[in-house]
Amino acid sequence: MPKRIPALFLFALGLAALAFVWVAPPAPLNVHAAQDNQPVYNAKGQLQLPANYREWIYLSTGMDMNYTPSASQVAGQSSFDNVFVNPEAWRSFQSTGTWPDKTMLVLEGRRASSVGSINRSGHYQSAIRTGLEVHIKDTKRFPAEQYPGGWAFFSFDDGNDGSLFLPRADCYTCHQQHAAADTTFVQFYPTLLPIATSKHTLSAAYLAEEAARH
Amino acid sequence: MPKRIPALFLFALGLAALAFVWVAPPAPLNVHAAQDNQPVYNAKGQLQLPANYREWIYLSTGMDMNYTPSASQVAGQSSFDNVFVNPEAWRSFQSTGTWPDKTMLVLEGRRASSVGSINRSGHYQSAIRTGLEVHIKDTKRFPAEQYPGGWAFFSFDDGNDGSLFLPRADCYTCHQQHAAADTTFVQFYPTLLPIATSKHTLSAAYLAEEAARH
Repeated sequence: MPKRIPALFLFALGLAALAFVWVAPPAPLNVHAAQDNQPVYNAKGQLQLPANYREWIYLSTGMDMNYTPSASQVAGQSSFDNVFVNPEAWRSFQSTGTWPDKTMLVLEGRRASSVGSINRSGHYQSAIRTGLEVHIKDTKRFPAEQYPGGWAFFSFDDGNDGSLFLPRADCYTCHQQHAAADTTFVQFYPTLLPIATSKHTLSAAYLAEEAARH
Repeated sequence: MPKRIPALFLFALGLAALAFVWVAPPAPLNVHAAQDNQPVYNAKGQLQLPANYREWIYLSTGMDMNYTPSASQVAGQSSFDNVFVNPEAWRSFQSTGTWPDKTMLVLEGRRASSVGSINRSGHYQSAIRTGLEVHIKDTKRFPAEQYPGGWAFFSFDDGNDGSLFLPRADCYTCHQQHAAADTTFVQFYPTLLPIATSKHTLSAAYLAEEAARH
């Protein structure tokens, strides 16, 4: 009987080892792991550009959008704006209608081309990136007294280290006064507006503005 | 000594159980698991709409694109076209410059809005979806003798069961004759064209057409 101890023990240990190998987690299918989508700042407080933002969730695209009636486009130079969000934040929005901390929205500008290949009219996106900005919710770093809702804007015009827009920049007041949900322009994201509507997370300012319009 | 058998055995079994719990695979972060992005056909051969295509990888957007100089837009009714691809196929394209079997490209049309909220000019995407098509590479189901490269087109105008475009439809010849890589219009996808160029997977027809243009 004592001779059976190691056999049983080894059998059970083997089972444990097998369990480890068998259920090893699969490699993430689509995008980088969760921790890859955490914001990274350098010593100067600059936000590092999320390298994989084109693998994030697409929200929408605008063309030549402008907020003043007299806005002048450079003649013949149309451009597109694409918006992406990190997948963790997107998942959270589906169930809550608002954004969790560490949400990053990336606004990517692209020059529009018109005549090329078989295309004869209308516009498509060219390889020329005309701008890159990130809107990030980081409530500890950006206190709500200065940064509405704990959100800050960074510009990446000069490379992969984003420069912070100071709180006096127009973007902060405009997003605070007109954006539909949590200081973000959900009214321009066709798959998110119905969610914010049904979850009752539309801002009072936006609702008042829409009521006045109709 | 015999009394220690069950203790050791239980300990090792507990270890095995712990191993199972400890390394349980995390829920997929971004999109559904790989098998969710496999095409599903019904008994009539209709392709099921991939329900989560808005979580796939975004390729690009066009506005009012047309392939004939005289193409008529409905007055004041501009529209956008967004293109998405399943993440597995996108990953494969990054390393090969071409598409694997079971690739699905989704073309989503959306009506353009102009004046709304703070927007005064230009266009943004509305909630109204104007069309939905899938271009799928399924070489066993769609033999290359009839379907160029093993690709077929499905229309989802009537719901979630896609109707197959027959091989005589214009889309097949146009894609075969003019698309930059593997019968897909990679020339309109700014992040993919450089990859196909460097991997030398651009089609002879496209290269000849571009050479004639310049």
